[in-house]
Amino acid sequence: MQAVAEVREVLGDRLSTAAAVREQHGKDQTWNPGAPPDAVAFVQNTGEVQRIVAICGKYDTPVIAYGTGTSLEGHFTAPFGGISIDLSGMNRILEVNAADLDCRVEAGVTRKQLNVHLRDQGLFFPVDPGADASLGGMTATRASGTNAVRYGTMRENVLNVTAVMANGEIIRTGSRAKKSSAGYDLTRLLVGSEGTLGVITEVALRLYGIPESIVAAVCPFPSVEACCNATITAIQMGLPVARIELVDAEHVKAFNAYSHLDLAVSPTLFLEFHGTVASAREQAETFAAIAEDLGGGPYRWAEKEEDRQKLWQARHDAFWATRSLMPGKDAFATDVCVPISRLAECVTDTQADLAAHGLYGPIVGHVGDGNFHVVLYCNRSDPDEVARVKGVYGRLIDRAIAMGGTCTGEHGIGSGKVAYLEREHGPALAFMRDIKRALDPKNIMNPGKNAAF
Amino acid sequence: MQAVAEVREVLGDRLSTAAAVREQHGKDQTWNPGAPPDAVAFVQNTGEVQRIVAICGKYDTPVIAYGTGTSLEGHFTAPFGGISIDLSGMNRILEVNAADLDCRVEAGVTRKQLNVHLRDQGLFFPVDPGADASLGGMTATRASGTNAVRYGTMRENVLNVTAVMANGEIIRTGSRAKKSSAGYDLTRLLVGSEGTLGVITEVALRLYGIPESIVAAVCPFPSVEACCNATITAIQMGLPVARIELVDAEHVKAFNAYSHLDLAVSPTLFLEFHGTVASAREQAETFAAIAEDLGGGPYRWAEKEEDRQKLWQARHDAFWATRSLMPGKDAFATDVCVPISRLAECVTDTQADLAAHGLYGPIVGHVGDGNFHVVLYCNRSDPDEVARVKGVYGRLIDRAIAMGGTCTGEHGIGSGKVAYLEREHGPALAFMRDIKRALDPKNIMNPGKNAAF
Repeated sequence: MQAVAEVREVLGDRLSTAAAVREQHGKDQTWNPGAPPDAVAFVQNTGEVQRIVAICGKYDTPVIAYGTGTSLEGHFTAPFGGISIDLSGMNRILEVNAADLDCRVEAGVTRKQLNVHLRDQGLFFPVDPGADASLGGMTATRASGTNAVRYGTMRENVLNVTAVMANGEIIRTGSRAKKSSAGYDLTRLLVGSEGTLGVITEVALRLYGIPESIVAAVCPFPSVEACCNATITAIQMGLPVARIELVDAEHVKAFNAYSHLDLAVSPTLFLEFHGTVASAREQAETFAAIAEDLGGGPYRWAEKEEDRQKLWQARHDAFWATRSLMPGKDAFATDVCVPISRLAECVTDTQADLAAHGLYGPIVGHVGDGNFHVVLYCNRSDPDEVARVKGVYGRLIDRAIAMGGTCTGEHGIGSGKVAYLEREHGPALAFMRDIKRALDPKNIMNPGKNAAF
Repeated sequence: MQAVAEVREVLGDRLSTAAAVREQHGKDQTWNPGAPPDAVAFVQNTGEVQRIVAICGKYDTPVIAYGTGTSLEGHFTAPFGGISIDLSGMNRILEVNAADLDCRVEAGVTRKQLNVHLRDQGLFFPVDPGADASLGGMTATRASGTNAVRYGTMRENVLNVTAVMANGEIIRTGSRAKKSSAGYDLTRLLVGSEGTLGVITEVALRLYGIPESIVAAVCPFPSVEACCNATITAIQMGLPVARIELVDAEHVKAFNAYSHLDLAVSPTLFLEFHGTVASAREQAETFAAIAEDLGGGPYRWAEKEEDRQKLWQARHDAFWATRSLMPGKDAFATDVCVPISRLAECVTDTQADLAAHGLYGPIVGHVGDGNFHVVLYCNRSDPDEVARVKGVYGRLIDRAIAMGGTCTGEHGIGSGKVAYLEREHGPALAFMRDIKRALDPKNIMNPGKNAAF
């Protein structure tokens, strides 16, 4: 293949066509089908990415960006072959501007790496999708996670990006100003574009001061509705909760077994409050009063880091906890997000659907944003079970869209949800495709993903 | 003109070709040159906008959206003629979803109209650009203002828009979900597109609960640097200040004369803190300590609404206060925004430039965002003064861009700053133009503005 040969001239040993490397770069951990690229390019700087894109442009060869491989929607598979650009070697933190609360990193820097680097300066980057993903990948999928209710998603926290576009041009999409009304918002266009409009090689991010005080809390409720109503009340009164996570009774059961806890088996909220000592305590107390009004409790809270870590560890182990109860089954994540007023209904209707079809689907939710995940367990060698799981999956997405929501709050479209884009966006999808065609007329940038044409 | 005749068939008397109406829809209050449209269409719904755009598309006739006419960059002039679509009659508040903290309004609803409507429900919409602009216009220019440091700009506060695109299609750019990773961010692409990609006819917005307590404060400082350093310290420590406005000594002088105040003539910060009674007070006290460390004070604060209103009235009257000192001169606003670490330097260098050229240019700034306005006073019949003012203006923009900032923090590009887009964006501008060409191939949507080609 001519493109591979020419890229080898640029990268030498850093271009791999080894089967194992190609396989690893062609298949994620989900049920989305994989397909290996023709070669994997381990790049070290934006200039190399530019040269590879230019070569691929000459031969209409697909270019697929790869960060840490933690995609949940088949973003980096190579159904049309091509060259996977592995950005993990671009892991330099280029600048930290403490006074401006911003930084600039190469796309392969992971969020944990950045936070370790920032800690001594009293700063942190809040977006936390669970996995230790690369910041380039998080930008490309518009990731979010547990802190988004207070700090926003990648949409709000990316200041600008450097990207190599399909024609080989390197652009920077904006300045370091916190706001601007100058021209079209190319930054937000590239955030969430999943490598289909350009390869993101550097990202400028907003940072935050580590709060003086962090208080974590756990509170069981009599029902999912009560959890949702407590969340609505807290948010409507402007309580600046930093995390508010719904964990259903199935998850609590699994936590108790897996993490040796003694939580009451009931829908539960895990919370975190950030602020001064006085304001974090005030927030925690205000929430306690809200919870009590809705029949919630007993309410446990923790200010010491050790106690907080213990509380959150169970939440972070949620996936492994339920998985341990389902040996031999595969797990598939859903990701709908609905207006918060419809959240309780969406969750309980989905639970009823699961029960009606005899399926195990524990639920966790970033409820402050209306986003929740059903983890669907499925024996893939049982066609009847596969059909039932797929039925629940499709009806969940239809239900969310009908409620004014989205098929994906944070995982992205990738290859897995392409079919749902039209259902969600209707005639707007045609304009996304017009943009794709205008910026990538040869369709070489991650073809087949997102607003693919 | 054929398009005008066909639009008249749709609107009847609601299409005007009267000279006075055309003039008023062709020229803003700034020094940007005006040009009247051929006709003004007073529309009542999205369907009418669609029919007008379809007619204009047939005849390659320009379409210019018009809200309240408060543009500061010649956004709605009609240099190529065409039809001005006046959206002020589309002023219905379509829905308020209190539990979800969102609402949907027609584009002609003004921010004050919305806030009056919301007050009884304990809600408000925070973006405050000063003028009582239409929410469609604020969306189209990516407006912000005094509250942006805490609540964000239109970029963060628009959930989705309904727009009529150049081909006459009506699209809605997203769902009511607070976040989504589904497809390209058409919402953010239209926010700030200034009517060049589509006519925005409805906007869904985020709302906030009116805080339990609001504390306003005023604090003089020995220098602009001290004001900026106090701001940096407050923001870096995570103090959730709702407003933090710099007013220079020239403005304070003008306030004292115009609003009969007795403020110390020194660079001054006007502040506001939102929260519970305890947290707003704690914030105000924390800021007082920061100010004292930097030589600021005496610090005055006010919790009662009446006292707060008095403090802010002077700030809101800033323009009229300085204007009253400069009879016979025109006033022109600048709008750069820089990283906050460079703000003091940018302001003081600009003050030195003004002094060196014998010009009066009082300064106000949304310093929490690094955004400030020099109000340049100019006798337009004095060619030498015009040249000196233009010199200061251009050097200010160059200085801001060199510091990693932007030529416009909130006013937009319009017709007035087209020349600066390339300087700021470099090669990225070509991709904005590719998008413009893809979505509006005949260039009928507000031609000549923003990323015009």
